[in-house]
Amino acid sequence: MTKLVLISSDYDMSPLGPAILAAAPELQVHHFGAPEADDAQVAVCWNPPAGALRTLPNLRLVHGIAAGVDNILRDPHFPAVPLCRVVDPYQARAMSEFVMWGALHFHRQFDQVLANQRNGLWQVPDQKRASDCAIGVMGLGEIGARVADDLLHAGFTVRGWARSVKVLAGIHTFSGRDALPAFLSGVDILVCLLPLTTETRGLLNADVLGQLRPGAKLIHVGRGEHLVMDALLAALSGGHMGGAIIDVFPNEPLPADDPLWRHPKLIVTPHMAAISSLETIGLQVAQNVRRLLRGEPLNNQVDVGQH
Amino acid sequence: MTKLVLISSDYDMSPLGPAILAAAPELQVHHFGAPEADDAQVAVCWNPPAGALRTLPNLRLVHGIAAGVDNILRDPHFPAVPLCRVVDPYQARAMSEFVMWGALHFHRQFDQVLANQRNGLWQVPDQKRASDCAIGVMGLGEIGARVADDLLHAGFTVRGWARSVKVLAGIHTFSGRDALPAFLSGVDILVCLLPLTTETRGLLNADVLGQLRPGAKLIHVGRGEHLVMDALLAALSGGHMGGAIIDVFPNEPLPADDPLWRHPKLIVTPHMAAISSLETIGLQVAQNVRRLLRGEPLNNQVDVGQH
Repeated sequence: MTKLVLISSDYDMSPLGPAILAAAPELQVHHFGAPEADDAQVAVCWNPPAGALRTLPNLRLVHGIAAGVDNILRDPHFPAVPLCRVVDPYQARAMSEFVMWGALHFHRQFDQVLANQRNGLWQVPDQKRASDCAIGVMGLGEIGARVADDLLHAGFTVRGWARSVKVLAGIHTFSGRDALPAFLSGVDILVCLLPLTTETRGLLNADVLGQLRPGAKLIHVGRGEHLVMDALLAALSGGHMGGAIIDVFPNEPLPADDPLWRHPKLIVTPHMAAISSLETIGLQVAQNVRRLLRGEPLNNQVDVGQH
Repeated sequence: MTKLVLISSDYDMSPLGPAILAAAPELQVHHFGAPEADDAQVAVCWNPPAGALRTLPNLRLVHGIAAGVDNILRDPHFPAVPLCRVVDPYQARAMSEFVMWGALHFHRQFDQVLANQRNGLWQVPDQKRASDCAIGVMGLGEIGARVADDLLHAGFTVRGWARSVKVLAGIHTFSGRDALPAFLSGVDILVCLLPLTTETRGLLNADVLGQLRPGAKLIHVGRGEHLVMDALLAALSGGHMGGAIIDVFPNEPLPADDPLWRHPKLIVTPHMAAISSLETIGLQVAQNVRRLLRGEPLNNQVDVGQH
């Protein structure tokens, strides 16, 4: 009998049990802390309490429920077992929708138009061509590549940056820290889709934001810890940057009294850009458990050493 | 010497002269009312005063400056000369950008998310698939076809309606008044891109809006006269419809004290969706004047009998 244990310090995992069992009824699913869970072979996690995983002696696989696994690898006692993430084909599309909305919002000046509406002001914004607006996508994995390609199809000029060399049709790509200044100097709208690693934590700092084109905008859909918020606020108030859409924060949910909610140049969204469906999570976890039992290669396994 | 006259009752036409002369320096351009304009052979118009055109005895061509020519044909004394419009290839793209922003705005519930921001409320909206959202495009000319195709590429389910039969890959099309109920009954977001004709004036009335799916949204980028505003307001307050983006009004600009600006379920935009560039207008007018002088077929000539 193969047992799975659901572990999270802050997220209600209970809907996941039925989703996994729908895909693999032969499994047993328990919540962390229940006595039956102690000999689980598989842990399914979102932000597990530090040390929780190492209390499971029979553990053979840790499975995340999202594309990002930083929420799991922050556990300093992460055990020496494979870690897999969920790659939802619809998630890339959902992310692309969110970024496209944001890109069009800034490109067509809806930020100004919506503010004008509140004042009853009829003022036609300049209509520039999308090709005159350069969007820089940081992070060119499966999701970033999809986002970049959709922006290209919409007529924008698109450039991309990633840790390693990527080749994407129609997109000027840059790789590595040394290429960051060249990448940033041509960007009107910066999109952060990076994974959170020791290399990318705090990457969006005053120096990086200061190298964007004057009036640049930010669409931040990576992780809260990528962004030095004070640096962004200074760039906005100083006028070098023109606005930002922030979907991720170091501490979520953002408290109701946080002044960020009221900042006139910020759109604050509730980590909504791309959510994996329960059905997809259940299916991918179930498939990987079966692969583990059959000794087959796992899907979407993370190279833990890179984080 | 070929003379052009610029005529409008409410729009500053003066930037058009240099744009036309840049493309055809051999022409003369005057404003309506100047004595030199009396023997003009070509009139370039936006909303000309009724009767103005028939005061020009040498007139051989009337040229609009936009895709729509209703602003010209409302003159009951429109003379028996050819009428041409401007078809800007970038205009279709600009329209598509505007509609895409609106479609994503409703699909991803940014209307609710932006309202939540004002209240400091962190509430993740349901993430539905674009394919579960049916967008109905009314008007399938060059611009409508482009809009529909881009929506399809973004993953939406797209249906279209036009006066005559249209075949568009991947899009369920309907034609004629009789097919209107079948078209409307499957629509979550209605996009109006119709030309303004006697047939389409007031078409978006209580009966038509009432046949949309419950909670439907409207993106109105046709002409103000298509929409019975009271019917929309009733559908919004009664709850059958969920929101609307209105870019066009019978009288523009909308006065600052108009209550529409403050309606919580309306986004009011300043007829900004798609503006032809001066360069394109100048080039297309110049090319058609040269074609006229050479006796060649005119580009983008309007079938006046259909209006």
